[in-house]
Amino acid sequence: YCLDGDNVRHGLNKNLGFTHEDREENIRRISEVAKLFADGGIVCITSFISPFREDRDKARKLHESVGLKFFECYVDTPIEICEQRDVKGLYQKARAGFITGFTGVDQPYEEPECPDVGLKAGELSVEECVQRIVSLLTESKIVPRRTLLAVKELFVPENERDAAKAEASTLPFVEISELDLQWTQVLAEGWANPVSGFMREREYLQAQHFGCLLDDGMINQSVPIVLPIITADKERLQGSTEFTLKYNGIDIAILRKPEFYPHNKEERCGRQFGTTNAGHPYIKMIMESGDWLVGGDLEVLDRIVWNDGLDKYRLTPQELRIKFRNIGADAVFAFQLRNPVHNGHALLMSHTRKKLLEQGFKKPVLLLHPLGGWTKDDDVPLPTRIKQHEAIMEEKVLDPDSTVVAIFPSPMMYAG
Amino acid sequence: YCLDGDNVRHGLNKNLGFTHEDREENIRRISEVAKLFADGGIVCITSFISPFREDRDKARKLHESVGLKFFECYVDTPIEICEQRDVKGLYQKARAGFITGFTGVDQPYEEPECPDVGLKAGELSVEECVQRIVSLLTESKIVPRRTLLAVKELFVPENERDAAKAEASTLPFVEISELDLQWTQVLAEGWANPVSGFMREREYLQAQHFGCLLDDGMINQSVPIVLPIITADKERLQGSTEFTLKYNGIDIAILRKPEFYPHNKEERCGRQFGTTNAGHPYIKMIMESGDWLVGGDLEVLDRIVWNDGLDKYRLTPQELRIKFRNIGADAVFAFQLRNPVHNGHALLMSHTRKKLLEQGFKKPVLLLHPLGGWTKDDDVPLPTRIKQHEAIMEEKVLDPDSTVVAIFPSPMMYAG
Repeated sequence: YCLDGDNVRHGLNKNLGFTHEDREENIRRISEVAKLFADGGIVCITSFISPFREDRDKARKLHESVGLKFFECYVDTPIEICEQRDVKGLYQKARAGFITGFTGVDQPYEEPECPDVGLKAGELSVEECVQRIVSLLTESKIVPRRTLLAVKELFVPENERDAAKAEASTLPFVEISELDLQWTQVLAEGWANPVSGFMREREYLQAQHFGCLLDDGMINQSVPIVLPIITADKERLQGSTEFTLKYNGIDIAILRKPEFYPHNKEERCGRQFGTTNAGHPYIKMIMESGDWLVGGDLEVLDRIVWNDGLDKYRLTPQELRIKFRNIGADAVFAFQLRNPVHNGHALLMSHTRKKLLEQGFKKPVLLLHPLGGWTKDDDVPLPTRIKQHEAIMEEKVLDPDSTVVAIFPSPMMYAG
Repeated sequence: YCLDGDNVRHGLNKNLGFTHEDREENIRRISEVAKLFADGGIVCITSFISPFREDRDKARKLHESVGLKFFECYVDTPIEICEQRDVKGLYQKARAGFITGFTGVDQPYEEPECPDVGLKAGELSVEECVQRIVSLLTESKIVPRRTLLAVKELFVPENERDAAKAEASTLPFVEISELDLQWTQVLAEGWANPVSGFMREREYLQAQHFGCLLDDGMINQSVPIVLPIITADKERLQGSTEFTLKYNGIDIAILRKPEFYPHNKEERCGRQFGTTNAGHPYIKMIMESGDWLVGGDLEVLDRIVWNDGLDKYRLTPQELRIKFRNIGADAVFAFQLRNPVHNGHALLMSHTRKKLLEQGFKKPVLLLHPLGGWTKDDDVPLPTRIKQHEAIMEEKVLDPDSTVVAIFPSPMMYAG
C-alpha cells in the first residue's frame, strides 16, 4: 500500500502545516501508520518529502525495534529536473515566492547517509526505479521473485562462457533427444520463467497435482517440463554433482545438482492428459522414453539455433519485449498456433485488435506465435506454415505494421 | 487488521489525552487510518471507546463518501459486567477517583441509534460475538463464507421437513446406489463443507484440475463428489427443475437446479487416480456407472442411518464439535483409517498426544475415525474393525478418556 501526499496530507494529516514542528509530526504519524501496515503483513511504501535525517532515523527505529523491516529509499533527483517536471507547478510558485519553506528551494534537505536503495530518478525511467525497489524486496524475501519483470534466462553469462564450455567438456555427459533440446530451449530462453531447469520431483508433483508451481507464489504451470533418462544412464550419472547434456555430440548445457526420480509414465499421462492411451502421439513418446526423470539447474552454453533459415523468427521473450517497445506497442495480444492461419483465426485476431482500439489503446500489437518444436507427422510442417504466415501478411489479411511473427520453440503436447 | 488502544494509543496517538477535544482527534485519526486500510483492501477492525455519536458518524461519512463500506458494531455490555471483568483495573481506579473522565463512570456514552450489528457481550461468548461480525462481513461479500466456523449441513430444517417430504413424493425421481447414498451422507452432514450438493461441472473441473475449489477462496478438494446417472434417466429428468433421490424406494433428498454433463470416466480416473486401469476397485465402479453426471443443490430429508447397531458411532461434524467441547479438549488430532489399528498406528497416535502435551496443551483429544462407507471385498468389515477399536480402548492401548471413536461415513476411494 502507498502512503503519499494525496491520501495522507488531505486526510490523517490535514490539520498539519509545513513548519518544522508540523513536518516532524507529519513524518511521525506516517511512520506510525506505516508500522501498523507492516505489522499487518502489508508492504507500505511512503513517498513523502522528509527533509530531516532525525525524523527518518526515528521512523527506522520505530520499525526495527519491534522486528519490522524498514528500507530507506533515496529518490535522488537534481533540483533542475524536479523543476522541469513540476507537475503541480509547485516549484514555480516557490521560486516566485508564493510558497515559502519549500524543500530544495528555500529549505534544506538533509541527504541520507546510507540509504538502502538510491534511485537516480533523473536518469532512470520510472519502470527501472520500480524494479530496483522490487529487487530490494525480493532479495529480502518480502515479495516473491516473480514480482520482478525481468525474464530469467538460463544462458551462461558471456564472460563465463569459455570457462563453462571448458568445464562441460570434462564432465560426464548424456545424449539428449531433439525433443529434449526443444524443451532445453524453452527453459533457456525463459518461456517457463521462473523455472530454473528441468523440474525436480517437487516441482513436477506440483505441476501434476495443482497445475501450478507453489514455491514462489502461485504460478500457472500445468505442463511438467522434465528430462527422461534411461536406467543405464541414471546408474552411470547418479554420483555426479553435475553433468553435460549433449545433442548430436555437441555440448549444450550443464545440469547441476541432479535429482533422479521415477518416471511414473502412466500417472504422468493420466494427470496431464486425462488419458493414458498410447494412441495419443505425445503419450506414445512418453511411454517410449526413459524410466527415470532427472531434474536440476540448467546452465545453457549457447543460444540454441536450428539453421533452417527460420532462426531469425526465433525471438526470445526479452527480444520480443524490446521489439514491442520499439514498435511503440501499448498493448500486445498473442495468438499461438500449430496450423496455417485460417479465416476463423484471422477474424478473431482482427476483432481483438478492434476491441483494443475501442478500449483506447493507440497501438495494439499482435504476436502471431507459431509453435516451432515437434508436431505430429500429419501436421503442416513449420517452413510451410511460416510461408503461409508471410503470405497473409503480404496480402494484408493481418496488418504487417502491427503484427510480429515469431516462433515459439516449444514442442506440441496436444490436448488429452 | 485490528486497531486498538495497544497499537494506536501508544503509537500514532500517544500525543493525545482524554479531553473532549483529544478524544475527537483520537477518533478522527483512527477513522483516517481505517480508511487507508480499507482503501488497500484490508478489513480494518477498530475497537475503541468512541463515546460521541458525532465522531462515529464522521467516521462513517469519511468511508462512505469514497465508496468504502463502514459497519458500526455496538458492543453493548452492562457497566456491572465491565466492572466485573475490569482486566486492567481501570474501572476500579475510576471509581476510586484516580481516573477522571472515564466513559461509563463519570463521562457519558452516547448509544448508537442503529448500529450495523449489536453485540450483547455480557450474554454472548467471545466466539459468538466474533461469528456475528464475520456473518455481517460474509453477507456483505467482504470475506469468504468459509470464514464462518459453522458447518453447513444440507438437511431440511425441522419446521420445513413435512412440506419437503410432501413435495419429494410428488417429484420425478431417480434410484441411487448404496455408494451414492454414502456420498449423500458425506454431503448432508457437511464433511465436504461448503459444497452444497453433488458437484456441478464447474466444481468438478476445479477439483479435477486444481485439487481445490476456487469460488469461495481456495479450499482443498481433490476428490470429485459426483452423482453418475444413466442416459435413460438423464433424458427422462432433463426438463425438471428438481427431482427426488430415492434409495430402496425411500425418498432421501431433493436435488434442485440439476445440471447434466458428460461423465468422462477415463479423464476423471486419469486425473484423480493417475491411472485408468479398471483393475483398481473404485475405477471399476466408475467405469460401470452411468455415462452422465448430474450436479445440483441437495436438500436431505432425514438423517441417514444404517440400522446396523453402529449408528451411535456416526457423529456429524457438528456433534463431534460439541463432544470435544464437552470433554474440554483444547486440541483435537484425528486419525482416519480403514484397517484395524496396528502397532505403528498406535505409536503414531501416542506420540502425537505426547508432543501436544509437550507443546502445552492440557487436554489433547484423539478422534479415531474409521471409514464407514464402501470398502473393497477383501478389507476387514466395519463391524469387526469397530470391535477391534473398542478392544484396544478397553485394554488402554489408547486412552479412553481422551479418545473419541466415530465413523466417517465416506466410501473409500483408494490411492492410484
